[in-house]
Amino acid sequence: MMEHIGRRLRIGVIGGGTGSFIGPVHRIAARLDGKFDLVAAALSSNPQRGRDEGRRLGFPDDRVYGSWRELIAQESQREDGIDVVAVMTPNDSHFEICTAALDAGLHIICDKPLTTDVSSARELAAKVRASGAEFCVTYCYSGYPMVRQARDMVRAGELGAIRQVQLQYVQGNLAEPVPSTGWRMQADRVGGSLVLLDIATHAFHLGAYVCGQDVESLCADVGATRPGGEVDDYVATLMRYGNGARGSLWVTNAAAGSEHGLSFRIHGDKGGLEWYQEEPNRLLHRRAGGFDQVLTRRLDPAMSPGALRSTRVALGHPEGYLEAFANLYEEFAEVVAARLQGERSSPDGDLFPGVIDGVKGLLIVDAAQRSARSGRWERVEAP
Amino acid sequence: MMEHIGRRLRIGVIGGGTGSFIGPVHRIAARLDGKFDLVAAALSSNPQRGRDEGRRLGFPDDRVYGSWRELIAQESQREDGIDVVAVMTPNDSHFEICTAALDAGLHIICDKPLTTDVSSARELAAKVRASGAEFCVTYCYSGYPMVRQARDMVRAGELGAIRQVQLQYVQGNLAEPVPSTGWRMQADRVGGSLVLLDIATHAFHLGAYVCGQDVESLCADVGATRPGGEVDDYVATLMRYGNGARGSLWVTNAAAGSEHGLSFRIHGDKGGLEWYQEEPNRLLHRRAGGFDQVLTRRLDPAMSPGALRSTRVALGHPEGYLEAFANLYEEFAEVVAARLQGERSSPDGDLFPGVIDGVKGLLIVDAAQRSARSGRWERVEAP
Amino acid sequence: MMEHIGRRLRIGVIGGGTGSFIGPVHRIAARLDGKFDLVAAALSSNPQRGRDEGRRLGFPDDRVYGSWRELIAQESQREDGIDVVAVMTPNDSHFEICTAALDAGLHIICDKPLTTDVSSARELAAKVRASGAEFCVTYCYSGYPMVRQARDMVRAGELGAIRQVQLQYVQGNLAEPVPSTGWRMQADRVGGSLVLLDIATHAFHLGAYVCGQDVESLCADVGATRPGGEVDDYVATLMRYGNGARGSLWVTNAAAGSEHGLSFRIHGDKGGLEWYQEEPNRLLHRRAGGFDQVLTRRLDPAMSPGALRSTRVALGHPEGYLEAFANLYEEFAEVVAARLQGERSSPDGDLFPGVIDGVKGLLIVDAAQRSARSGRWERVEAP
Amino acid sequence: MMEHIGRRLRIGVIGGGTGSFIGPVHRIAARLDGKFDLVAAALSSNPQRGRDEGRRLGFPDDRVYGSWRELIAQESQREDGIDVVAVMTPNDSHFEICTAALDAGLHIICDKPLTTDVSSARELAAKVRASGAEFCVTYCYSGYPMVRQARDMVRAGELGAIRQVQLQYVQGNLAEPVPSTGWRMQADRVGGSLVLLDIATHAFHLGAYVCGQDVESLCADVGATRPGGEVDDYVATLMRYGNGARGSLWVTNAAAGSEHGLSFRIHGDKGGLEWYQEEPNRLLHRRAGGFDQVLTRRLDPAMSPGALRSTRVALGHPEGYLEAFANLYEEFAEVVAARLQGERSSPDGDLFPGVIDGVKGLLIVDAAQRSARSGRWERVEAP
Repeated sequence: MMEHIGRRLRIGVIGGGTGSFIGPVHRIAARLDGKFDLVAAALSSNPQRGRDEGRRLGFPDDRVYGSWRELIAQESQREDGIDVVAVMTPNDSHFEICTAALDAGLHIICDKPLTTDVSSARELAAKVRASGAEFCVTYCYSGYPMVRQARDMVRAGELGAIRQVQLQYVQGNLAEPVPSTGWRMQADRVGGSLVLLDIATHAFHLGAYVCGQDVESLCADVGATRPGGEVDDYVATLMRYGNGARGSLWVTNAAAGSEHGLSFRIHGDKGGLEWYQEEPNRLLHRRAGGFDQVLTRRLDPAMSPGALRSTRVALGHPEGYLEAFANLYEEFAEVVAARLQGERSSPDGDLFPGVIDGVKGLLIVDAAQRSARSGRWERVEAP
Repeated sequence: MMEHIGRRLRIGVIGGGTGSFIGPVHRIAARLDGKFDLVAAALSSNPQRGRDEGRRLGFPDDRVYGSWRELIAQESQREDGIDVVAVMTPNDSHFEICTAALDAGLHIICDKPLTTDVSSARELAAKVRASGAEFCVTYCYSGYPMVRQARDMVRAGELGAIRQVQLQYVQGNLAEPVPSTGWRMQADRVGGSLVLLDIATHAFHLGAYVCGQDVESLCADVGATRPGGEVDDYVATLMRYGNGARGSLWVTNAAAGSEHGLSFRIHGDKGGLEWYQEEPNRLLHRRAGGFDQVLTRRLDPAMSPGALRSTRVALGHPEGYLEAFANLYEEFAEVVAARLQGERSSPDGDLFPGVIDGVKGLLIVDAAQRSARSGRWERVEAP
Repeated sequence: MMEHIGRRLRIGVIGGGTGSFIGPVHRIAARLDGKFDLVAAALSSNPQRGRDEGRRLGFPDDRVYGSWRELIAQESQREDGIDVVAVMTPNDSHFEICTAALDAGLHIICDKPLTTDVSSARELAAKVRASGAEFCVTYCYSGYPMVRQARDMVRAGELGAIRQVQLQYVQGNLAEPVPSTGWRMQADRVGGSLVLLDIATHAFHLGAYVCGQDVESLCADVGATRPGGEVDDYVATLMRYGNGARGSLWVTNAAAGSEHGLSFRIHGDKGGLEWYQEEPNRLLHRRAGGFDQVLTRRLDPAMSPGALRSTRVALGHPEGYLEAFANLYEEFAEVVAARLQGERSSPDGDLFPGVIDGVKGLLIVDAAQRSARSGRWERVEAP
Repeated sequence: MMEHIGRRLRIGVIGGGTGSFIGPVHRIAARLDGKFDLVAAALSSNPQRGRDEGRRLGFPDDRVYGSWRELIAQESQREDGIDVVAVMTPNDSHFEICTAALDAGLHIICDKPLTTDVSSARELAAKVRASGAEFCVTYCYSGYPMVRQARDMVRAGELGAIRQVQLQYVQGNLAEPVPSTGWRMQADRVGGSLVLLDIATHAFHLGAYVCGQDVESLCADVGATRPGGEVDDYVATLMRYGNGARGSLWVTNAAAGSEHGLSFRIHGDKGGLEWYQEEPNRLLHRRAGGFDQVLTRRLDPAMSPGALRSTRVALGHPEGYLEAFANLYEEFAEVVAARLQGERSSPDGDLFPGVIDGVKGLLIVDAAQRSARSGRWERVEAP
């Protein structure tokens, strides 16, 4: 598709200035496959700092903006204005920025969580639908080739019907000797429960993405495990998926000494799959009646179509987080390029998570919070 | 202690004949450290088969019995009768056999679960107390040196206060192409829920053993995941420990393709510990503010006292399940030998699980079943 | 530095067209950190194919060249001509291309091996020195952060004096059911022994890079292990390093079923380090008198300066081969930018391998071949 | 077989008193399967200490001897004298003790190395042959089930012809802060090169056992890597096996921080196998044209006959070093029991290493020492 439009897509970034973890990630992801030119930036809520950083990072002087409003307003006036905006600001600003970008006719890549509550998320999804814009929510872990391998194997029935799911996302950063700071420590900017919105949404999405099933009901334990902790740092759930499969989940950012332990383990009638984000090029296939196989990422037809499409380097040359993130950008580029050609999304489009996935994330957070209050199982609403 | 009585202890085994997984394990465990002579056996509920097998296994002809009643009756008449009886029969016979053995003045090593319900378990515990006999329940995973290392580190405060616990016991045997048979498939012989009584009791004990805390309340999902499954094969729980720590657990014997995935992961204020039974000589120590350490079993003062006491071979020479099991026998031998000398249990006595641990197992099973019915959190009764 | 020149560096690529493994790797590496603009290309020895591919990959029409000679000639005439040329053609063309590029005043990034024999390598090194150009040989595995961590730890004396080294690079591609083809199967294009020039050079460099010591003498077994194999696919060596340390090496591309097992293990008086390229974010630190530590890549001062400088993403977010490769490009960009400002190489310059490292690669290949013929230890010449 | 003789075999132990690593290992191995009664002991070269320890360990008073000569003399007079003697004394005494035991008509289990030089080894082998006694050399690592699995797979052609072998045995004990002592630090008691006799013999045997091929020639680097080291602590070799396969080996006991890293990796035309003694229940099967399989020890027909025969516990219940060692005892018991019944060795007899394997160990040590002196490849003599 990109070949047909004869140029790279133009992208502007909102947020992600100094001190941001995710800002550099988005920018590398946009550059990696050469399908975007990073041409405009509003990097900070502080106008001067935003402009200084934009210049330092090599954005053209006249397209470094003091605010996101300025960026959207001026870029939509330019002949060579941006095609896509990438939003990586604190959670509580996503709704307003995305709404304005849609009004300006832009396609959007937005960080998770989509917004900070169910109603704004549903409203945004309706606007996206109405506008016809392309929209990607960066549940980036679904960009890993071996995650797609797992999903394709489930779809192809290689595990039989899925019966059991276990999800983990076990970080330790809140329990480090030097405490965390920044907007994530402010409940109002986060939109409520830090652990639920910030990281559990990733784990819930990963489970649904691989299993092809949404959680229909759950029973949750949510709270703070650190002494004097005012921010939720722990959630564990019992779950029931759409097809009746049972699941459990443990997510925390306060397991002292932990790194970034995102993982899934799923079992169907014929076997199971296990994946650990910290060793993303491997997928363990446990087979009923046989020995385990270690599926390793490679560039050959032993991989599933989704895995093969999202890998760049041969067997034994590890890919990582940046490549996974870049896969969402690369796929989004293809879909947007098709749109610029007047075509609809490619069938590959379902590889990257869209606005409905973003809504589902807030719906499951909502159900978890209700369950934590009621001490009972609660249903997850439909999007 | 053994040195002082000038002989090996005499032990008789009840159960564990042909086809039994656990029978050979008990016999090897009894032999391994040379503290017991296996002198009497009632190996089967079928008298002739029991006698044949006893002879085949090298038990003396005149001490191979056709029933456990015979064994207890005749051994208690002999001058050189057994000191200890080891009970490895189906769950629903433990109460009756142990009661008779206590009446005959024997010390007892009994398989888990202690009995099949709370009231019989409490009654048996009362009888043990009244009789003054020594009693070991073979929660064998607590016999691993690195499990004791973990426990000692928790006791010594090396992790700080425990905040989070995650337990797993993920087997696949019920989901194998060739279905399981035997008494475990009969709910009345098991005593109810197979997954809870047969394997979850191990996982709950392991968590409590390492953390030094009992589960006070839990919320459980219990059921059958296999299509048409009539036997419970799945349990997941949310838990609260005595000190307020939060926990979660996933136990199943129907995760197709799985082996024997018993593991714990616990985190306190200062760090965490992770252990996998399938690689039992390693204990991962995650440390807040530092790099992970891999603690490997060895025979030197780098190990904790409990770990050092229960290891036999030097660094890098793996020990396994049989050695762990044998540790319970070895420790039990020392305690019984002390009793024969008129002394009380050694202070090391708390290394092996006793009758109260057996009662606690049934209490937590009871709470899980209540919770599965109510869909709510339930308290675990005190023993 | 890049900030001071106010623009990205302009780079042209020679080689790396369709079917090339390394072409896309170089291009991604150049883009990843936004320090280069890929502006010119001569992708194939077939002029038409080279032009077609250049356009397909998005190079500007007027800077897509039919041959490397054309590229060098025309770019050196342009006001906005390239600063740097990246050479990724078959081994036997490196000398001629690099010589011409030096004559045209370009800085060079060149694939390994530098050339195909010792004398051409020395001649090229002399020309580089005379020209004053910056030169990088892409021994890309030295770009991994944990390799730099290892190197920095050795330099800082954390292992004590290095005593033992073991290097492996165990691939299986030549033993796959579908045989390899392409120029690598033609001895004259490779420059002689495939296994020595193509992959053993990487392993020898990695060992020297980490230990800070060159091999002074070696005894080698070189040959073909595949039945009827006409291409060398196996080398094993005994080695003695400059400081007296002993080493051994096993390198093959015909270990059926293997992936890309490049690894080192080194031991000094105080401990050892182990690293496996397939899990590049981990470095195992074995410590005399203590437990092993698992050093994991992170973005904080627990890392050594060299490791920290070459990492982009936080703890637990894996980086891989492309990031390692990109590190050489990023560092080379800084050095070239300094030169454009009239400054000498930054002190960080020694992070990436230079032309002398390329010469050393051919010298050790030469010694290995002499030893394979003589059946004795042979000295490695000085560069 | 044991069933037919109607009793356990009677065994006496020579050596292995206080401070010995291997003494307790032999005694546990003898007890584990209940096929031996440990009835006689001469535990120390110091008569009084030997007697005290024998009593402490529970040997009958009248069969605790002050010297090995006494033990052999008196046991051979008893009606109920020992069938088998187990020899675990320093290397330089094996020849004399074994010779006397053969003269007394005993069957022998002897520690490796068989003796301390080639000529005494050949002489002992001739005596064994002449006497008709059964003889086992405890190359104990060949007792691991997954080592037998590997051997059986090679024999069955599952790897195709073997092309490449890599052996390692990397210990750190000589480099620990607290230096080693004991007879192993005395070259005359060891019989020459510590690293060659003490541990390299294990690695050479393991390679030959699995591959079914002996080393025919080798080139070796042997010496001391520790500063001021007077004892050989390092050997690396290049090797050629009987079938033309190439091999390399790295063995040391001075790699600071290392544990007990015995491993093999072999590759044939169709794939490879990797095994690490520290995780002995797993065998990695790398398959050309397919994904890796992880073969885990289990008690079912998925295992090869040799593996299945030497395993005791089900899938997922780890076995270790003591069980591997006990396998040699168990198999030796069957062979001796058959002899007592007047039968020849069972066909399983080739599972445990015999006196010829002991001779081969000294022959390869001899070739390595010759090569280290000559700086050339040397042939290994035939036994």
